[in-house]
Amino acid sequence: MQEREIYLDNNATTKPLPEVRDEVCRMLGDEFGNPSSAHGTGERARAHLAAARGRVASLIGSPPSNVTFLSSGTESNNMAFYSCTRNKGKKCRVVTTTVEHSSIRKMCSYLCINGVEIRFVKVDGKGIVDLASLEKNINDDTTLVSVQWASNETGVIQPVEEIGEMCRRYGVPFHTDAAQAVGKIDMAVNDMPVDFLSFTGHKFHGPQGAAAIYSRDRFMLAPIFFGGFQEEGFRPGTENLPGIAGFGKAAEIRKANLERDIAHMSELRDGFEARILDFIPGTRVNGDTRSRISNTTNILFKGIDGRRLVAELDAAGVRCSQSSACTNFEVAPSHILSAMGLTEEEAYSSVRFSFSVENTFEEASKAVEIIRESCGRLSP
Amino acid sequence: MQEREIYLDNNATTKPLPEVRDEVCRMLGDEFGNPSSAHGTGERARAHLAAARGRVASLIGSPPSNVTFLSSGTESNNMAFYSCTRNKGKKCRVVTTTVEHSSIRKMCSYLCINGVEIRFVKVDGKGIVDLASLEKNINDDTTLVSVQWASNETGVIQPVEEIGEMCRRYGVPFHTDAAQAVGKIDMAVNDMPVDFLSFTGHKFHGPQGAAAIYSRDRFMLAPIFFGGFQEEGFRPGTENLPGIAGFGKAAEIRKANLERDIAHMSELRDGFEARILDFIPGTRVNGDTRSRISNTTNILFKGIDGRRLVAELDAAGVRCSQSSACTNFEVAPSHILSAMGLTEEEAYSSVRFSFSVENTFEEASKAVEIIRESCGRLSP
Repeated sequence: MQEREIYLDNNATTKPLPEVRDEVCRMLGDEFGNPSSAHGTGERARAHLAAARGRVASLIGSPPSNVTFLSSGTESNNMAFYSCTRNKGKKCRVVTTTVEHSSIRKMCSYLCINGVEIRFVKVDGKGIVDLASLEKNINDDTTLVSVQWASNETGVIQPVEEIGEMCRRYGVPFHTDAAQAVGKIDMAVNDMPVDFLSFTGHKFHGPQGAAAIYSRDRFMLAPIFFGGFQEEGFRPGTENLPGIAGFGKAAEIRKANLERDIAHMSELRDGFEARILDFIPGTRVNGDTRSRISNTTNILFKGIDGRRLVAELDAAGVRCSQSSACTNFEVAPSHILSAMGLTEEEAYSSVRFSFSVENTFEEASKAVEIIRESCGRLSP
Repeated sequence: MQEREIYLDNNATTKPLPEVRDEVCRMLGDEFGNPSSAHGTGERARAHLAAARGRVASLIGSPPSNVTFLSSGTESNNMAFYSCTRNKGKKCRVVTTTVEHSSIRKMCSYLCINGVEIRFVKVDGKGIVDLASLEKNINDDTTLVSVQWASNETGVIQPVEEIGEMCRRYGVPFHTDAAQAVGKIDMAVNDMPVDFLSFTGHKFHGPQGAAAIYSRDRFMLAPIFFGGFQEEGFRPGTENLPGIAGFGKAAEIRKANLERDIAHMSELRDGFEARILDFIPGTRVNGDTRSRISNTTNILFKGIDGRRLVAELDAAGVRCSQSSACTNFEVAPSHILSAMGLTEEEAYSSVRFSFSVENTFEEASKAVEIIRESCGRLSP
């Protein structure tokens, strides 16, 4: 019999909170409306949209007007890149790192084909970007520096404040993919040297389909779509009001409980990780454990095929993954772990566990037991 | 005291059905998951995604694999245009009409700035596109013909079958914006000479934020976003599973009741329209009443300022509009009515009423009474 699901893949997506579900349902019921309609129903919808914008902005420490609603983290990352590479004359360089999400990597491939020069800056063995190398790669043609705030695979936090300061000195726009950082780090983006910040609600119990980009100045954004005046024309198309309202509710709840939530996830993760390292021989943590978001651990199980381990755990009801969901079906080892110097075998032996506020200590303990048994069976 | 809302602006957006709400909620509850995850939770999400795709495809008469999920009708229209104008060499012409939605018009402006030649084909006084003129505008450089299936403002249905046949003869891809046609016309798109068809769920009681593009061949699509392998890489970004599932549910319900729903909306609209024309002097219907979707009427109230009428009706609880929601806040008369030869004054004197299956005969009668009173007050 299948055990009750223990969901430890919260960096892929999270289960929406009941309050979020209720808020979405409200917008699908008597509070429905098209925010662009010039009548009472539209006015009501506009009010809900404004409320959600305020809540989302508050979570990242931004004025509401700097937040533009989009449909996914991928759209948000892509939009920053489009905005900084379109119509920039013939020479154009983007500086990023070797440990970015696929929505940055694949966008870079696309831009590269279209004549944009891309520089990938290396990270050290702990997954931290090499600042000296980053600086050396910035030149007069550079129109964008993009560095992920926190890694989706290892949870490693990059020194975004320092990188932003460096970009300021060179007068280059700085974008950060903060999909895994928002809601897990207390931030005041508007007080930071950050020009664009990408994030999405479904990483902290909001609904899928609602995301946003923060921009220091909305006029730095280049719209990808053309049509109506939604989002002041920067993102035409009828707004996903139910999704956005749910995003707002999730942001409001996370903002109100940020410290407590971070502490809870940290306690869960740290206890889980310590017991894995204690109980299972040949295990070690990938990435810098001193600079890491509180919910993620990426563990190397030496000599064990991580893909088989993930499948065994899945059969026992424990959900985890080898890399980001967006690359789960690629037949290749994690590019992030490879960039950190892990061998192909080591990368394939590594598994990511990501916690949420909804996980319990009982689940974490149970998961450790199941992992221990599976490793016993799979050990060489 | 404000009367109970009589919502007659269903071409802007519709209130989701209770069953749709329930389906969305299921995906926000125990059925949550990221369809890209390689574990049981992901598998469950993939199954829901596949079920929704089947239901949506069935409504338009398409194989499921020809349906790509997107976030809005605007994205869908834009994607067809991007797909047919990117990397087409230096000469490239798009042929469309003067009565398209803003997501086509504004896209044309953008493409025009970027060197694409745009030809706008005229319509007659009834709003029907001039086929001879359309044919004359197709040349060897033409990479796309785009004609709206049914008008968002007048409900007028274009001869898409004939236009598609013409495009076949010239070997030019044909796109139709079917946002107002899907769910209001029984269609089998895969048996028609149509290469791309754009539509969105929130026009027939699905949730906002979930839309789709049909393409005869997925490889005719050029992705706008770059990242993961969602939608086989044609639309990267974590899927809006709750929205898509709701879209699927709405499509399933509409498909099952299509004939009955069309008849109900038609009865409502026809009765409403007849009484307005009977009771209120100086009224007439804009657009071809013989070739029109069943839920829409666009009425000219001669000598009355339509903007004031819409505002008066709004105050009395009747929601209607002057043009599409996407252009509601533009200070200009409807470009669609202008293209049909109405004077600026006539266009400003016109109001759109659009019904849904949820409207009742009682509401329609009550609305007629309220409109009659308002017109009495506003008459010159």
